[in-house]
Amino acid sequence: MKMPSSSATELTKPELKHFLTTQDYTRQELTDILELMSMFKEARKANAVPQLFAGKSVAMIFEQPSTRTRVSFETAATILGGGALFLSPKDIHLGAKESLSDTGRVLSRMCDVIMARVDDHKTVAGLAEYSTVPVINGLCDWLHPTQIMADLFTMQEHLPAGKKLEDLTVAFVGDATNVCSSLMFACTKFGMHYKHIGPSKYQAPEMWQEIARENIKLSNGKLTVTDNIEEVEGCDIIIADSFYWFGQEAEKEERLSTFMPTYVVTEEMMAKAGENSIFMHCLPANDQRECTREVMEGPHSVIFDEAENRLTAQMALLVYLTHKSIKKPTEETLAYHKDRIESFLSRV
Amino acid sequence: MKMPSSSATELTKPELKHFLTTQDYTRQELTDILELMSMFKEARKANAVPQLFAGKSVAMIFEQPSTRTRVSFETAATILGGGALFLSPKDIHLGAKESLSDTGRVLSRMCDVIMARVDDHKTVAGLAEYSTVPVINGLCDWLHPTQIMADLFTMQEHLPAGKKLEDLTVAFVGDATNVCSSLMFACTKFGMHYKHIGPSKYQAPEMWQEIARENIKLSNGKLTVTDNIEEVEGCDIIIADSFYWFGQEAEKEERLSTFMPTYVVTEEMMAKAGENSIFMHCLPANDQRECTREVMEGPHSVIFDEAENRLTAQMALLVYLTHKSIKKPTEETLAYHKDRIESFLSRV
Amino acid sequence: MKMPSSSATELTKPELKHFLTTQDYTRQELTDILELMSMFKEARKANAVPQLFAGKSVAMIFEQPSTRTRVSFETAATILGGGALFLSPKDIHLGAKESLSDTGRVLSRMCDVIMARVDDHKTVAGLAEYSTVPVINGLCDWLHPTQIMADLFTMQEHLPAGKKLEDLTVAFVGDATNVCSSLMFACTKFGMHYKHIGPSKYQAPEMWQEIARENIKLSNGKLTVTDNIEEVEGCDIIIADSFYWFGQEAEKEERLSTFMPTYVVTEEMMAKAGENSIFMHCLPANDQRECTREVMEGPHSVIFDEAENRLTAQMALLVYLTHKSIKKPTEETLAYHKDRIESFLSRV
Repeated sequence: MKMPSSSATELTKPELKHFLTTQDYTRQELTDILELMSMFKEARKANAVPQLFAGKSVAMIFEQPSTRTRVSFETAATILGGGALFLSPKDIHLGAKESLSDTGRVLSRMCDVIMARVDDHKTVAGLAEYSTVPVINGLCDWLHPTQIMADLFTMQEHLPAGKKLEDLTVAFVGDATNVCSSLMFACTKFGMHYKHIGPSKYQAPEMWQEIARENIKLSNGKLTVTDNIEEVEGCDIIIADSFYWFGQEAEKEERLSTFMPTYVVTEEMMAKAGENSIFMHCLPANDQRECTREVMEGPHSVIFDEAENRLTAQMALLVYLTHKSIKKPTEETLAYHKDRIESFLSRV
Repeated sequence: MKMPSSSATELTKPELKHFLTTQDYTRQELTDILELMSMFKEARKANAVPQLFAGKSVAMIFEQPSTRTRVSFETAATILGGGALFLSPKDIHLGAKESLSDTGRVLSRMCDVIMARVDDHKTVAGLAEYSTVPVINGLCDWLHPTQIMADLFTMQEHLPAGKKLEDLTVAFVGDATNVCSSLMFACTKFGMHYKHIGPSKYQAPEMWQEIARENIKLSNGKLTVTDNIEEVEGCDIIIADSFYWFGQEAEKEERLSTFMPTYVVTEEMMAKAGENSIFMHCLPANDQRECTREVMEGPHSVIFDEAENRLTAQMALLVYLTHKSIKKPTEETLAYHKDRIESFLSRV
Repeated sequence: MKMPSSSATELTKPELKHFLTTQDYTRQELTDILELMSMFKEARKANAVPQLFAGKSVAMIFEQPSTRTRVSFETAATILGGGALFLSPKDIHLGAKESLSDTGRVLSRMCDVIMARVDDHKTVAGLAEYSTVPVINGLCDWLHPTQIMADLFTMQEHLPAGKKLEDLTVAFVGDATNVCSSLMFACTKFGMHYKHIGPSKYQAPEMWQEIARENIKLSNGKLTVTDNIEEVEGCDIIIADSFYWFGQEAEKEERLSTFMPTYVVTEEMMAKAGENSIFMHCLPANDQRECTREVMEGPHSVIFDEAENRLTAQMALLVYLTHKSIKKPTEETLAYHKDRIESFLSRV
């Protein structure tokens, strides 16, 4: 399938880069994004964020409801001077009333970024194939890369004294979720020791582990996949996530009885990890299941910093992905178009 | 329940003030807000509203649909240079998928104000307890304080010659709604004579009357609660409201037969109130029930001024509640962050 | 029904003009809008769109879901410095919970433009009757005038060498849809030859043809309504549209068997029209029905330019309809209100 000639040359930029997975980025590129996040967080505190998305818009497609992804992208666009469109499943029928290829190309003509939270990774990948503006994966069945940028940044903010990112041991306790996979890829790329600790039935599949092992070849990281909860001992970071999701209601009882109580993150588990260990969770958390309220509210928890860093990540990503293609006009250009249009309006 | 140490010190501002009820404010403070409303209304007419909410966002949570509250807050944010997020019941599950305390803290990290229209006052009060940004009550089962700021301002715009707010006699005709209660508190605080005129079964409960009587001790106002519709005579303002609400469908017939026709506001009733009496209604109005179309369209009606003043109130409230905590950057600070980020971007 | 005295004088502007149909506009006025579109498209490419809707808002009412109309208006408002409110059927009950006349007047007090996509033309016409700000018809059962501005502009961008708009022969192939009617009115107004080619049962009704013939008296255009598909020969533009819509599911089989395969736009049909003929479609398109995927992706297709021009049209329309009533403040006025409000805030 070829794009119509009228659109191919004009809008496809050579610099076009999507953000579907951190695997498409080098460690240096991800480090650049983290540095940009740091600058934007400081600028936000000073109420002095440069308007680098002024007059620009991000189309946000949600096949599932979401609080954090929605609020963080919409607020990021506002802070940067632009706007965000919330397109719910009822407003837009991806692949139903309109093909992915048509939707991607139409939105590309009107908006500057497309963010999609989809049920199936193929959907966001299909959008990226046809879009002529950057497409961001806002969560799919397989990956959650914007969450992971927030998580890496939060780890950096709370590094134990004397340690760097590559010195960390990160334990993800629970189900092989999209956060588990994305963190596995990012942590191994950064040279950390990543442990997925969960019952064997719900451990990261071999295909994910292969990707992680490829990363490790370059980074000297380490991967452990185990059902032994004692492995939390000495870990710098303990991460919890839901034990079941949309569409897994039928498995709910079996899942809960397999995960609980062994893999519930408690204050005792945090103490075993270590005095300075950090607790993270992408939220929403169920304090009757994967972790206790005591942990969430306790001294190890950085969950609200982590949530705030969703916003920090989205500011950086919107700008990182568009700054090369968004031409900055000169004062002369601005004045030319303003005068021309206002002068015309004064005559009609 | 204690907030995690990481967030407690940094973002809780000493000036943090919510807007849950006018009872949390002194008469002088409410007068200040009215004066600010007047300035914003003039500035809007001149198309010269200062951008005092630029780059800021208000998260709007709606457990019930709404036209006026929604449009007025969203437009107010736009006029002031910021943005508003519309979070419907489907987008966010207060107290269901996520606890109030977590939701309040997460939104506080990303947004600058939280506005909530809720089924139960406890929900908005719970949000306020945990939020580190101002929470505005956009209507609950008990109160509707932003409507009341619009109403006080509208009364002030249409004061009978020679009268001040404290000289007014205000008759609320009908059910003991959240508008009835909020107006009762505000009018008695301002020293007015407030009459709730309605069938005894639906009159303001004793608990509300006690609050009003406490106000009167300071203000020299007056409270009358009566079923005698003749009491509209000589009143400056007549206010109508719905005879039944969401969740009261089962009582509908009983309610209508109790209220109608005695408590329907007609042109005859307005004439009895007085030649210069004013008719108000928070809208939407049902012109087959609580008032006639003739009254709504007649010379006494100021209902569309009242609706416009919802916007006037929201502009003033967004700024009043945030101006102390939103640091105004210097030109140097703005330039520092802009140069730093743009310079970094030119290298990546 | 009369408007309350309080609102009548202040906000009704003598210049108030709605955009319900291109028939309310002269050919010169429509040409002006096309010229404005051209200026805005150039300014957008240069990233230098003047902020002529800054701090202004457009209320968008959708009785039916929509991708293009929604995204184009919302993005247009953002690019111009303003905001757009998305009011879905659940958020606002036109004519149900609140009368059209009340809704129109309330929105007029808070917003600067109302855009409505409605099931029944009477709804948008009713809104226009009571609104004191411009009302734009964003599609109704009868008309789709903002689509037509995009279409005229796209024709102009792709004019065959040496031809002007009035030299074009435009063939609309298929059902007598709202796009068919609106194009018929606009093309005949511009002096083109407009052909509606479709099975006799689904041809443009006599009432539409009368309007077109009135246009032709002034413009020297031409109208052909025929079931003879051979009439596509030599046409400059071939336009397809859906064979059935919401609410026509019961007729679906009968419609499809009547339209297909004769009225399906294929590459063979485009070749018959001519080597340089252009294919247009308002989208979403069904490539199993009214046209083939080959045509959509082929050398004749300008469908994504056409989609982008929805945005071009909305930018021009928002500004065209409001620029006379939106007072431009002087620097002195801006400073006066800013100083006054900031000075007040520093004291409270």
